[in-house]
Amino acid sequence: MPLFDLPLDELTAYRSPRPEPADFDEFWAATLAETSAHPLDVVVETHELALTAVEASHVWFAGYGGQPVHGLFLRPSPAVVAGPLPVVVQFLGYGDGTGSPLDWLGLPAAGFATLVMDTRGQGARARRGGATGDHDGSRSPHVEGFLTKGVLDRADYYYRRVFADAVRAVECAAQLDRVDAARLAVAGTSQGGGIALAAAALADGVRAAVVNVPFLCHYSRAVDVTASEPYAELLRFLRTHRARAEDALATLDYFDGVNFAGRASAPALFSVALMDDVCPPSTVYAAHNAYAGPTRLEIYPYNEHEGGGIPQDELTIAWLRDHLAVPTARAAN
Amino acid sequence: MPLFDLPLDELTAYRSPRPEPADFDEFWAATLAETSAHPLDVVVETHELALTAVEASHVWFAGYGGQPVHGLFLRPSPAVVAGPLPVVVQFLGYGDGTGSPLDWLGLPAAGFATLVMDTRGQGARARRGGATGDHDGSRSPHVEGFLTKGVLDRADYYYRRVFADAVRAVECAAQLDRVDAARLAVAGTSQGGGIALAAAALADGVRAAVVNVPFLCHYSRAVDVTASEPYAELLRFLRTHRARAEDALATLDYFDGVNFAGRASAPALFSVALMDDVCPPSTVYAAHNAYAGPTRLEIYPYNEHEGGGIPQDELTIAWLRDHLAVPTARAAN
Amino acid sequence: MPLFDLPLDELTAYRSPRPEPADFDEFWAATLAETSAHPLDVVVETHELALTAVEASHVWFAGYGGQPVHGLFLRPSPAVVAGPLPVVVQFLGYGDGTGSPLDWLGLPAAGFATLVMDTRGQGARARRGGATGDHDGSRSPHVEGFLTKGVLDRADYYYRRVFADAVRAVECAAQLDRVDAARLAVAGTSQGGGIALAAAALADGVRAAVVNVPFLCHYSRAVDVTASEPYAELLRFLRTHRARAEDALATLDYFDGVNFAGRASAPALFSVALMDDVCPPSTVYAAHNAYAGPTRLEIYPYNEHEGGGIPQDELTIAWLRDHLAVPTARAAN
Amino acid sequence: MPLFDLPLDELTAYRSPRPEPADFDEFWAATLAETSAHPLDVVVETHELALTAVEASHVWFAGYGGQPVHGLFLRPSPAVVAGPLPVVVQFLGYGDGTGSPLDWLGLPAAGFATLVMDTRGQGARARRGGATGDHDGSRSPHVEGFLTKGVLDRADYYYRRVFADAVRAVECAAQLDRVDAARLAVAGTSQGGGIALAAAALADGVRAAVVNVPFLCHYSRAVDVTASEPYAELLRFLRTHRARAEDALATLDYFDGVNFAGRASAPALFSVALMDDVCPPSTVYAAHNAYAGPTRLEIYPYNEHEGGGIPQDELTIAWLRDHLAVPTARAAN
Amino acid sequence: MPLFDLPLDELTAYRSPRPEPADFDEFWAATLAETSAHPLDVVVETHELALTAVEASHVWFAGYGGQPVHGLFLRPSPAVVAGPLPVVVQFLGYGDGTGSPLDWLGLPAAGFATLVMDTRGQGARARRGGATGDHDGSRSPHVEGFLTKGVLDRADYYYRRVFADAVRAVECAAQLDRVDAARLAVAGTSQGGGIALAAAALADGVRAAVVNVPFLCHYSRAVDVTASEPYAELLRFLRTHRARAEDALATLDYFDGVNFAGRASAPALFSVALMDDVCPPSTVYAAHNAYAGPTRLEIYPYNEHEGGGIPQDELTIAWLRDHLAVPTARAAN
Amino acid sequence: MPLFDLPLDELTAYRSPRPEPADFDEFWAATLAETSAHPLDVVVETHELALTAVEASHVWFAGYGGQPVHGLFLRPSPAVVAGPLPVVVQFLGYGDGTGSPLDWLGLPAAGFATLVMDTRGQGARARRGGATGDHDGSRSPHVEGFLTKGVLDRADYYYRRVFADAVRAVECAAQLDRVDAARLAVAGTSQGGGIALAAAALADGVRAAVVNVPFLCHYSRAVDVTASEPYAELLRFLRTHRARAEDALATLDYFDGVNFAGRASAPALFSVALMDDVCPPSTVYAAHNAYAGPTRLEIYPYNEHEGGGIPQDELTIAWLRDHLAVPTARAAN
Repeated sequence: MPLFDLPLDELTAYRSPRPEPADFDEFWAATLAETSAHPLDVVVETHELALTAVEASHVWFAGYGGQPVHGLFLRPSPAVVAGPLPVVVQFLGYGDGTGSPLDWLGLPAAGFATLVMDTRGQGARARRGGATGDHDGSRSPHVEGFLTKGVLDRADYYYRRVFADAVRAVECAAQLDRVDAARLAVAGTSQGGGIALAAAALADGVRAAVVNVPFLCHYSRAVDVTASEPYAELLRFLRTHRARAEDALATLDYFDGVNFAGRASAPALFSVALMDDVCPPSTVYAAHNAYAGPTRLEIYPYNEHEGGGIPQDELTIAWLRDHLAVPTARAAN
Repeated sequence: MPLFDLPLDELTAYRSPRPEPADFDEFWAATLAETSAHPLDVVVETHELALTAVEASHVWFAGYGGQPVHGLFLRPSPAVVAGPLPVVVQFLGYGDGTGSPLDWLGLPAAGFATLVMDTRGQGARARRGGATGDHDGSRSPHVEGFLTKGVLDRADYYYRRVFADAVRAVECAAQLDRVDAARLAVAGTSQGGGIALAAAALADGVRAAVVNVPFLCHYSRAVDVTASEPYAELLRFLRTHRARAEDALATLDYFDGVNFAGRASAPALFSVALMDDVCPPSTVYAAHNAYAGPTRLEIYPYNEHEGGGIPQDELTIAWLRDHLAVPTARAAN
Repeated sequence: MPLFDLPLDELTAYRSPRPEPADFDEFWAATLAETSAHPLDVVVETHELALTAVEASHVWFAGYGGQPVHGLFLRPSPAVVAGPLPVVVQFLGYGDGTGSPLDWLGLPAAGFATLVMDTRGQGARARRGGATGDHDGSRSPHVEGFLTKGVLDRADYYYRRVFADAVRAVECAAQLDRVDAARLAVAGTSQGGGIALAAAALADGVRAAVVNVPFLCHYSRAVDVTASEPYAELLRFLRTHRARAEDALATLDYFDGVNFAGRASAPALFSVALMDDVCPPSTVYAAHNAYAGPTRLEIYPYNEHEGGGIPQDELTIAWLRDHLAVPTARAAN
Repeated sequence: MPLFDLPLDELTAYRSPRPEPADFDEFWAATLAETSAHPLDVVVETHELALTAVEASHVWFAGYGGQPVHGLFLRPSPAVVAGPLPVVVQFLGYGDGTGSPLDWLGLPAAGFATLVMDTRGQGARARRGGATGDHDGSRSPHVEGFLTKGVLDRADYYYRRVFADAVRAVECAAQLDRVDAARLAVAGTSQGGGIALAAAALADGVRAAVVNVPFLCHYSRAVDVTASEPYAELLRFLRTHRARAEDALATLDYFDGVNFAGRASAPALFSVALMDDVCPPSTVYAAHNAYAGPTRLEIYPYNEHEGGGIPQDELTIAWLRDHLAVPTARAAN
Repeated sequence: MPLFDLPLDELTAYRSPRPEPADFDEFWAATLAETSAHPLDVVVETHELALTAVEASHVWFAGYGGQPVHGLFLRPSPAVVAGPLPVVVQFLGYGDGTGSPLDWLGLPAAGFATLVMDTRGQGARARRGGATGDHDGSRSPHVEGFLTKGVLDRADYYYRRVFADAVRAVECAAQLDRVDAARLAVAGTSQGGGIALAAAALADGVRAAVVNVPFLCHYSRAVDVTASEPYAELLRFLRTHRARAEDALATLDYFDGVNFAGRASAPALFSVALMDDVCPPSTVYAAHNAYAGPTRLEIYPYNEHEGGGIPQDELTIAWLRDHLAVPTARAAN
Repeated sequence: MPLFDLPLDELTAYRSPRPEPADFDEFWAATLAETSAHPLDVVVETHELALTAVEASHVWFAGYGGQPVHGLFLRPSPAVVAGPLPVVVQFLGYGDGTGSPLDWLGLPAAGFATLVMDTRGQGARARRGGATGDHDGSRSPHVEGFLTKGVLDRADYYYRRVFADAVRAVECAAQLDRVDAARLAVAGTSQGGGIALAAAALADGVRAAVVNVPFLCHYSRAVDVTASEPYAELLRFLRTHRARAEDALATLDYFDGVNFAGRASAPALFSVALMDDVCPPSTVYAAHNAYAGPTRLEIYPYNEHEGGGIPQDELTIAWLRDHLAVPTARAAN
């Protein structure tokens, strides 16, 4: 895929033309209030893979509807860092699951605690398995994917549950042992980036946000400029339910990263790839350009959806150290 | 796709090597008893597309868990056939929805009533939209498709709900106006064929079954010989949850068309396509060869999953007339 | 395929820049005169599939060069509609054949008679088989497809014969039993839409035209904006016979839906799909915007060549009832 | 494509199981008699591309039905070879045309005259354009390709005309200026190899035959083991006209290279590629193993349909020199 | 890709039919002697990404021809493990580079030191960049890939240099600070597995080997059963240089994992995926079944080349702890 | 691929925005001086394929670094043309090899001598094998292809060696027997066109240049507008070595056909195909529009990378005859 979206100078100034729903804040306030009615019910259990330099645990907490959501919680061994730890709550890409502690060693090796949250119902078709089911919410027809699950009714829409889970994951992370709740960040790539945007807007106490090539932003633009998965799931729905297209898009307005961006204030590190046909650059810029807090944007001119890859992860560690006041390893040793 | 499965002489004798679960019948008896606890709650509403030679209605009935399931009900106009009508309950292919009466005119034009049942949650990515949601049942992770929804727990598995819906559709059809319940058949192609097999085994009063290139038969063989959708959904699950492969296959034993075939006794018209990589011929033969009632098998040596197409539909009309004692048009006019 | 053609506001105003041939009308007058020299020789034979609510027949008539062309003729049973019937002459998509009466029940179920015409030589690679051969006309080399058959000589070009057949099909339909020739429409989708445009311009007595996502319009634009089949056949020809490109395009000017549109005056229902790479929207708009009669245009913003699908068929029935003065079913019953 | 057909030891012994038609010889005797009724009408015209070491001409002769068939005729310049020249009649691959003298310099550079025959109606979608049309013969429906043109009627089948043309090309070549008719060979690759087999069986005076990876052999096996073009055209026909499959295969028996092989006696050089999914090795072996004259078979174990390529062309020159008694260049100079 | 290779019972007993070269050991003795003539020249430099729980360094050592080869060296922080560390030398998949320490945290987190070796010249097209060039060795033509670089001359063949590098990497690892050279293993996946096999056979002091879905085994079988990359590179070479096929295969005999397997005696953990079209199961079994030391083989029946993925990595940690006498984390803390 | 690059009117005026390196001329002067230090060492050997009308030889000469480079040398037989011959030095497309004299008969048949040069290291994956290796030059990582071999260091970059070879091929051709060095042209298609541009700029005595759909022009534009091979190799490098993208592009400035074009003065025949996604038209126009000598540009509006094909070859012969004062065949005979 060569360049296919707007030229860079237009991207820089691009804003979503879609108005946000008048009752956006009411909708989310009600959703979170409903979720808060359930106790958080945190359960922590040592992971069966006994590592040496890193402590790994399973965590469960009560998400949307009080349903148990699974996470992995990793920390550097106390021999390495004695004091309270900054913590990063991580969200997953589409179809991914929490998998193994071996998948999440970067941040704990760098001196952070991290909680990785399962995306309910996902984790069955990719490299990593998930361990969290999804209740209810399939009351209207959907393509196979989660993107259209309940898309005709905002109360029933799949990502309502996921974003509520994400807020609860932040609450959970703040309570975990050895964590310094005053130094908490959210982070994610692709779908994870979209969830991180929602969490940055909806959760209390988020001090920094890492948003890589985010999915779930500016849906109406996405389906006009790409037919790649997973936005293609929405496209298939719109092609089948021709008469309900605007209804579906109206639901999605309540779940648009562009609208969350305007409500988030923590410093944010964004990345965008200019040849990304999975999360097209104009949809990423629409979210970035609406972001209410300070941002840094890394641009990868030749990459597709792999974006900045591991180099962006290295940069993320440095950026998080700056924003969460983490001493460098050299100082730590 | 050229020939890729067993040679024809081996197909003719092929039997699934997989034993059936000891409590298969108990499982289904309990499922149907649970479903029967809900009243059927049939609602009929004239369809907004006013046809002339055919009467079309929306129907809703209470399916698994008492949830409303949508169907389309079509009959030849009373001016054409005055007396009670034989009725065919039709089930849909994977991802399909009931759509419009225009999609289902063949049987009513030929003098049959027909009830076409939505497959819960489907009907969002294909030619025809559906109108029925799916409750609950996503308690373990799943690939995007329905085939793995709840596949680690037979009580939670998606097709438990669908097959229960199908039994209720048969009950519903028998009660509809102008229908002669003593002349009732089930029919379907691909997923619809698999559902028809289940209905033929589980429902009372089925006098004939039409099973074209059925899906949902002999899963363990399917994933060994094809990587085409939708069996590929199962393959992706097995590739991700490596340690749970046998658990998933054990669930599927309760939903295997081979096992239903051994419990069905109504005369059945099967069709198979020898180059079908979607529903491989060995999985179709495994069901056909296990069928407990009399069968006729149409073999399409060069076709892929399109199978016999419209010519098979023409043959189906003739076969159903024979088995449901329908006078031919000539006689009717 | 996401959006790839002109933006909607440019489509709305888009006109083909290509001038029409000075002797366009002479060419077609001569062609039709030559065809009229053959007697129509209509033969009707009851179809072997004896339906109940619908009467189906095979029809043959003498098309271009006097060659027999096959059609299917369907009517609601006289028990349903007693009086003379409005009639719709239908033309087929590329590669399609008349197939079975089961394929054409929508209009007769709604109270119309319909004649479906085979496209000579087609009907051998798709869902439906055809039953009409093509004589002569291969005097210059051609890619496998019909689109380039004889394309270097307008007298020998394949669609000269097809469009002449279409005019004869209209004449034939008007003479068929129980038909009210004063209420006659033409209809088609894709290639069928292109043929319907030609018939609307060339045949007498057409009262309405249904033109869905038409093929055979604005060829020179088509090969610049899409490489999808079947316009790709023309592209292959132009790539091989580099020195004859303008000759081929000059032939096609005599067969361009844009030029027929300017000569048709019956009310027309058009549809266009904005992501249609088979019949690109700019080529459809070029025909629509040139249409000489009143039009209604349905726009499907997310669809590819499937266009409006069955929902468009439902709308077509309503529109045809309005334009051919058909009482609704409710009134009819 | 890795190995997909029979293992080599089974190929070596493989024979087509299909019986030949009882009236095969009568059919071809009648066809050739009918063709012979037309005078050959050879026309030669110097080619507009004035080469230096090679003389190139256009040739036309009357083929099947007396229709003009185009060829290219090339000879080494008289300054190079003074005496009469051995001649090779070459036939083309599917979709190919005679193109330019630049395409056919190998044999004249090596001291041979050569006549390259257009395959009627082909030459519009590939590297080389053709210049010969095809009359009539489209009396039954066909997929876009030539392979199914008239396939339901052996008298009307496309290759009846092509093979008759090929016999006429041999007659024509023998009469051309500077040619030694006693040293005449036929040659071709893919479709050209299939035509060469027919010419070797049907034409008089063929002293050697070169048959590379031939098409048009053992059709029923081909459609069972490959779905690649152009056998896929036949597959599409069989899939559409399900009830006419055996009729089509029965027509093809009259055009099967296996049956021509049993009637050819000139020494033949064959080549086969074991990973060839276009002309599967078992179909090539079926023809080779049935060949009635002496053969040499070159086996390319790793190649697909490109077969032996230019190295096989080099070998062909040496082999033809041996079999047509051509002095080597060294001797010639 | 469904099952495509031999059935499991045949795989279990499968042996390569290809004899090994008589001078195999002489060839490698000479190669290693030539390499040993260069001093090892180890250079260690702290990595610029300052981690906390893990120490990361760049390493360079002199490989084949004395050329500098880059590696990454990671150890748990001394605060975590005080004593000498078992060490695992890791080799990379085809096209991969050493990338970042973030890519290699699993083993150090589990208490191992690890040295990851660049594969010379690779690391430019995948997720991870490499930092090591390849000198010379392109003396005969090659497809773009490394697999055919110099394949017509065993002295010049690319993997001669790579395997010599691998032996030097083992020597280098044994000398690195905090390493216990008596507890050294080699490990790799795909190409890395093939290199690990060579290192296990050629290097001194290897106590355990991990060989996942290995590439570079039984080349002649590979090109018969798969056309997937990167064996396809060899296939392209064989298809172009038809006359040199056996020469190329004869070179490859000196680099065949099957032959190295017969010379390795350390306990080995193998894994194979039965639907792996990149490194077909029969080629993996051929190496496994020839292995001279004790083996454990993990079979993944539904996986393609992703094989056992992270679950296999977890198992590897446990297996290496057993075989290198590593206390578990619980004991360590 | 339909039209995808700039519209024709913008192409006509298009210039590369990239400045050329200040030391471009110094770089190439030094490279050629270094190459000239090696004696040319021409070796000629009669080709084993003894043709009749054409004389064919193998040629070796010392290229960059003094390494032997292979070529094929063909001339019309002395019986055909007695006097000194104009000569065309031909360069090859990407991955191609010199193959056989049978591949290169067009120019000698038309009265020219021709020397075809192997592209070092290529000729292993396509129709034609090569016979020339590539020394050194892999000092930085590269994707499999030649396009990125050494791309981080202009002294080590692969095409430095190739373009130096090309200059030497011109010197060699001028010395060959029967050649008239005052009538020398260079020619090539795709990669060969790019090399011809470099030779036209760098070599002495070039009287005409033929540059068809050239590769190796305006790299930075190419990777923005196409993801097709082989520019995709560069794209993969840029995607992996994100931080080195500008370094790679800076190297390529020394090898950009646009910069060579500005230094070439011989009359040139260019061709461009407007749907060419391999060598996009804007990159070809950038070179053409920068060309310092007189040009003729053939535009193929519908073609992809096949460009003008054989018709362009015919035109080339006529154009070369004009520019190298070759009498036409008619006069010659």
